[in-house]
Amino acid sequence: MKADRIKSNSEAVASGQYDAADKSSVGLVETQHFFYDQPFRTSSGRDLPSIELAYETYGALNSDGRNAVLVCHALSGDHHAAGYHHSDDKKPGWWNHYIGPGKAIDTDRFYVVSVNNLGGCSGSTGPSSINPSTQAPWGPDFPTLRVRDWVASQHLLMGHLGIGQWAAVIGGSLGGMQALRWALEYPALLRHCVVLASAMKLTAQNIGFNNTARTAITNDPDFHDGRYYDHQTRPKNGLAIARMIGHITYLSGDLMGERFGRELRAGSFTQGVESHLEFQVESYLRHQGDKFAASFDANTYLLMLRALDYFDLAREYGDDPVTAFREAQCKFFVASFTSDWRFSPVRSREMVDALIAAEKPVSYVEIESSLGHDSFLLPVPRYQTVFSAYMRKISEEYEMKGGE
Amino acid sequence: MKADRIKSNSEAVASGQYDAADKSSVGLVETQHFFYDQPFRTSSGRDLPSIELAYETYGALNSDGRNAVLVCHALSGDHHAAGYHHSDDKKPGWWNHYIGPGKAIDTDRFYVVSVNNLGGCSGSTGPSSINPSTQAPWGPDFPTLRVRDWVASQHLLMGHLGIGQWAAVIGGSLGGMQALRWALEYPALLRHCVVLASAMKLTAQNIGFNNTARTAITNDPDFHDGRYYDHQTRPKNGLAIARMIGHITYLSGDLMGERFGRELRAGSFTQGVESHLEFQVESYLRHQGDKFAASFDANTYLLMLRALDYFDLAREYGDDPVTAFREAQCKFFVASFTSDWRFSPVRSREMVDALIAAEKPVSYVEIESSLGHDSFLLPVPRYQTVFSAYMRKISEEYEMKGGE
Repeated sequence: MKADRIKSNSEAVASGQYDAADKSSVGLVETQHFFYDQPFRTSSGRDLPSIELAYETYGALNSDGRNAVLVCHALSGDHHAAGYHHSDDKKPGWWNHYIGPGKAIDTDRFYVVSVNNLGGCSGSTGPSSINPSTQAPWGPDFPTLRVRDWVASQHLLMGHLGIGQWAAVIGGSLGGMQALRWALEYPALLRHCVVLASAMKLTAQNIGFNNTARTAITNDPDFHDGRYYDHQTRPKNGLAIARMIGHITYLSGDLMGERFGRELRAGSFTQGVESHLEFQVESYLRHQGDKFAASFDANTYLLMLRALDYFDLAREYGDDPVTAFREAQCKFFVASFTSDWRFSPVRSREMVDALIAAEKPVSYVEIESSLGHDSFLLPVPRYQTVFSAYMRKISEEYEMKGGE
Repeated sequence: MKADRIKSNSEAVASGQYDAADKSSVGLVETQHFFYDQPFRTSSGRDLPSIELAYETYGALNSDGRNAVLVCHALSGDHHAAGYHHSDDKKPGWWNHYIGPGKAIDTDRFYVVSVNNLGGCSGSTGPSSINPSTQAPWGPDFPTLRVRDWVASQHLLMGHLGIGQWAAVIGGSLGGMQALRWALEYPALLRHCVVLASAMKLTAQNIGFNNTARTAITNDPDFHDGRYYDHQTRPKNGLAIARMIGHITYLSGDLMGERFGRELRAGSFTQGVESHLEFQVESYLRHQGDKFAASFDANTYLLMLRALDYFDLAREYGDDPVTAFREAQCKFFVASFTSDWRFSPVRSREMVDALIAAEKPVSYVEIESSLGHDSFLLPVPRYQTVFSAYMRKISEEYEMKGGE
């Protein structure tokens, strides 16, 4: 029964389009907005005069408020994590594989909150928003943000929604860093911390890739030192390159081999027609880069990359993650994926070792997958099973509590 | 004694500068030029009306001509493989660790020939050369080249130098592909094929990285569809990004961690001073990118990347490398490096398996190294030992022949 459900679900998602009869989808959803009309002090010491956060919720909050979970997005994600905005949407939210009735984050059990991070470009206050003091877009004057700023702003939303404690804070990659920061900053406000394909800090190689992506954007003549809004242009070329770098490195080498091999788009080498030869992997990557560059704000991407680079769980704890994790009061679930070479299982094991040394309850699973870093977003059967089982356990905890 | 020599050699190289007393260096060398005043038919079917090849030689050709070895360069290399051009040169040729008296490619025993590949930008005919029919630089009108074109042009130089057979054709990475092609195209003209950190063809991931690098160059507004010479400009930004991508991926993640960690150039995070934070790995990569972009020709880089992508050892042999290798008459030495993730040991093992199936003599060594793809250029003790031993064996073969 469960297997059937997952299967039909995958099929629905494979087609992607909205299907009113699909019982595993949260269906049509609406973006909501939270306005915080007071100064928000960022970790850089600078204030935003007010902030707005775009968010969505799926499922219903129980009367005791104990079934709320926060989903944190990664680098280029947004608040639209599940369901559809319109009945003619071609694609659902970015985590539709894992959020919905009967899915790992089961909306029949959980009240799911998903926020566009501060600094984002999908409705939350960010570099493309109007700076009230200049009546022009913030652009490069938007404060640098760190993961802790997102956590602080999510905490404000939590209060607004009347949630006293999260059943879980959940995130993959940069989202996992937010979940970790929640566990240290507001230890009493979450019962579980779910950290997928993440790390306590980036490696030098990761920072190198991010820096190359940033340089591609900032060197684009259309970037205009971040003031491209004033020039009615966008650094599309640079942003496309940045996305291509990300895209290759978030897939595994094996997966790219399976998907594209060395197939030529034109079918074969043709003598004399040299300049238009293209491998399929090339047109795929260019398409991905161009698509992203057409819709995403470059300053937001720079801001998110920076937050990723700067995240260092234990920096304020004498560089000792064990000391850091002693702050936590929640239980941890950590998952990594064998072919993920940007957030490799080694990084997760370091985290788990520190959690164990700090005597925190932690469940760890290393999932065999050829899908690279993106595994956490994709339907990987064993991951679906283990993640679902852990979330089911969380819901049973509060259901038991509720029954007392 | 051997260890001492290697050690003092490394020290000399560590300082880098010319040292007249350094007995392990070939010392001052001069670039020579080979003019071929007839049409050169490229594999694309187009003719170059004439070609010029810049090359260097180290050591002396024996009277029987049996001690000549050809060294083939990789993506951004040139003919200047060893020694110094001027006594105030700060750095020697790119393979100075391995070419010189007493080194692996021992210039007391071998006559070493090193060529700037056709299409290059260091003296050989390439896109930045003048097209005689227009009296302007070739630019994008330069024919697309494949590895076989380099082999054919090296064959012309071989005749010019009066060499009847190479004792060995040697190359790393893209240079290894040339060595492999030599073994199939001119099987009688080489006795050994030395293939280091190479592959029979690129993976989709490799093509993806190369394509991202290409896109960074061609999207640069200063590229002008490859006619930047006419605009007195160069696509420096794009070329720098391309080089940064290459640089990260040619190092191992571990090496980058060891070298740079997450050290900040400024020393620490400073609240309020946000925009100028830089990790050391960032300034290193930007410096590498800018340095390269200031000297290398973008059209040459595009041409070399394309040749790398298109190389497919067995394409004309029914996609069967065993069939391909049956053409060969030489012996093979193959080396790979454990931390090389762009030309991983898996690719070398595939090659070795095919060679064994084709019943060709092959020695294979997988070297433990944390230096990534660049290992083949760097002093790695076990590699130095094994490579030296194999080359010594080659020299003993012809010395024995000479004594018969």
